Amino acid sequence: MAVGESKFPDIPHIDGVRIGVAKADIKYENRKDLVVFEICEGASVAGVFTKNAFCAAPVVVAKENLSKAETRFLIINTGNANAGTGEEGMLSAQRMCDEIAASVSSGIIAGQVLPFSTGVIGETLPIDKIAAAIPKTLNSLGSSTWLDAAEGIMTTDTRPKGAYRKFSYNNQTYSLAGISKGAGMIRPNMATMLGFIATDMNVEKSFLQNVLCDITDKSFNRITIDSDTSTNDSCVLIATGKAGNIEITSDDSELGRLFITELTLLMQELAQAIVKDGEGATKFVEVAVLAAENQKEALNIAFDIAHSPLVKTAIFASDPNWGRILAVVGRSDVDNLDVSKVQIFINDIQVVHNGARAKAYTEELGQQAMSEEVIRLRVELGRGDINERVWTTDLSHDYVSINADYRS
Amino acid sequence: MAVGESKFPDIPHIDGVRIGVAKADIKYENRKDLVVFEICEGASVAGVFTKNAFCAAPVVVAKENLSKAETRFLIINTGNANAGTGEEGMLSAQRMCDEIAASVSSGIIAGQVLPFSTGVIGETLPIDKIAAAIPKTLNSLGSSTWLDAAEGIMTTDTRPKGAYRKFSYNNQTYSLAGISKGAGMIRPNMATMLGFIATDMNVEKSFLQNVLCDITDKSFNRITIDSDTSTNDSCVLIATGKAGNIEITSDDSELGRLFITELTLLMQELAQAIVKDGEGATKFVEVAVLAAENQKEALNIAFDIAHSPLVKTAIFASDPNWGRILAVVGRSDVDNLDVSKVQIFINDIQVVHNGARAKAYTEELGQQAMSEEVIRLRVELGRGDINERVWTTDLSHDYVSINADYRS
Repeated sequence: MAVGESKFPDIPHIDGVRIGVAKADIKYENRKDLVVFEICEGASVAGVFTKNAFCAAPVVVAKENLSKAETRFLIINTGNANAGTGEEGMLSAQRMCDEIAASVSSGIIAGQVLPFSTGVIGETLPIDKIAAAIPKTLNSLGSSTWLDAAEGIMTTDTRPKGAYRKFSYNNQTYSLAGISKGAGMIRPNMATMLGFIATDMNVEKSFLQNVLCDITDKSFNRITIDSDTSTNDSCVLIATGKAGNIEITSDDSELGRLFITELTLLMQELAQAIVKDGEGATKFVEVAVLAAENQKEALNIAFDIAHSPLVKTAIFASDPNWGRILAVVGRSDVDNLDVSKVQIFINDIQVVHNGARAKAYTEELGQQAMSEEVIRLRVELGRGDINERVWTTDLSHDYVSINADYRS
Repeated sequence: MAVGESKFPDIPHIDGVRIGVAKADIKYENRKDLVVFEICEGASVAGVFTKNAFCAAPVVVAKENLSKAETRFLIINTGNANAGTGEEGMLSAQRMCDEIAASVSSGIIAGQVLPFSTGVIGETLPIDKIAAAIPKTLNSLGSSTWLDAAEGIMTTDTRPKGAYRKFSYNNQTYSLAGISKGAGMIRPNMATMLGFIATDMNVEKSFLQNVLCDITDKSFNRITIDSDTSTNDSCVLIATGKAGNIEITSDDSELGRLFITELTLLMQELAQAIVKDGEGATKFVEVAVLAAENQKEALNIAFDIAHSPLVKTAIFASDPNWGRILAVVGRSDVDNLDVSKVQIFINDIQVVHNGARAKAYTEELGQQAMSEEVIRLRVELGRGDINERVWTTDLSHDYVSINADYRS
């Protein structure tokens, strides 16, 4: 199940990046499960990674390699997260890099490869299957597409997720493309369960890293499906520089600001695509908390609503049970909340006015608002001028089935 | 659905407390939904109440009255929470007290009555129905039992919940009895969704209040079903003094310490009864976090595990998917967690040893442990000597059905 239409966009080739995808039979036979990105010399690469203390072996290796050498390859497997696998898992993650370095003839060292894994936690990575499939993955470099890659990183996702943007400045056209995956264990904290983004712009590496961190905070770090932060969350942003612009080093220039705007839109689209494909999702829910005193209290309330199983099951049932929203606002960690200043809206229908049921509100109005596929909950606190938005899903029978009936 | 056996204990009469129960047709016809406790003169009464900022009108009135006068009556209705009801709700809660005072002939004032409501949030309390049923409720004082009262406060509970203890000291026998209710919106913060406890002991009022707060923290504040704190949580403890002991004023005496021990056991039993009757519960789950550096980090991890929908659905499926537990431990708010010191057990089967899969662990052993109805998860952090335990349930299809199919 998933919300909204599922058409994968027609993502163009990004000059300076080649994609290779193959089937390695890691968990299931005959499905794309191994993806390689080849990145041109001179590109800037930035990455953000999970803050889960039990971060997976590939995350440890990728962080280390990214900080030490110019990244030239990404290798990603699905079907196994290589997390909770101890010393053996570290050796396997390292070997993914070694095998790539050994298989290409251009003097690449293992430290220039970033490994990524996604799938079930705690099982031994079948590294020999991966090693055996690396040559054919490299052979397909250039003939595989962004769609192939998006399919090659799926786990419980029901559809591939991608986005791209083309924009112009001073008669030069730029491209920005990305894919993401994730449907469960989604409450990213620094990134999401795998996102890979590339542009042909020329962007200086440390600025690229800052931009990626900032925008992750406004996109992937604003979504939640089930409150659980994955052990493997990673997002990589590549700027190949092939478009030939003068290197962007800050947001002082118009082109720098344009890049940030476009990247924000792209990353929010990828983040929301994960929510729309959330496990068992039948609704896409935006929770906006407005007029807060500070960001912390706004996000506390927004995420508490987005995580409340009582709110989520009511949304699944299209039941305007607004008392559950009110109860969450009241229990959230907010100092001295004056409930008589609180307004609550469901899709622009005011249900709570100054802390109690709005006089004009009727059950019929609420029912109508809740029957939509996209639900926008708005809580106005009347305390200040900080606004925050997070995105989530409902909690359905299918969520329980997906997570109780299968080992994911 | 509920876990374990459901026999209601044969709770004896507590000298100094009389119970009256009637049917007022508040939400459903022909069910017990109005309960009155009459408390003898000279008794000590203590109470703890929800910390939800949107606390219900009766909570506001009960807190005020408890602090100002000697409490002689409790009146409790089910079927409607009288929360999120604004000024009108306050008037209704006040009228519950007024009607009791007017109906008894012994010179009671409204301030000596504590009102409690439980049920759906945000709907107008049918106060006229309650007022009309008060005379017959008072008429039944003395002929109604603790079982009647436990039934009279149920909402989505599938069974009445009660406990009692008898104990002796210096040839004098003492009694301690209590009831509780709650099955959803359970993450108590100061108390649970209604608990009423009485003893015939003589206990000084301010000490009684301190004891109630302390033990609430070790019982009702250690359970969670769905992470949502109710707007109506309240727990009242009555000490009638009819047993004739010298007044207990502190834990300096042996009898004081005995009282604390017995009350702790009773309140933990009542709290666990709520978990066992949790909405859709098929398993009773204890989460123990041991060898933590401080209480905060121990409770963070314990509650994060107890709230994780991925862990809860795995438990529902009897699936030893320990990677999900490990992922929660890793994302919890703990400073500088050294994962190589973490051990995880499911019912004494070690699944994680020093941060990775335990060598002796097999899927069969895990499956066997998870097939039990009572699941004990144990996480050892190796950081200090603080231990904490919380209790919760699994997350089943019935939980979604109960909360999506009916307005509760």
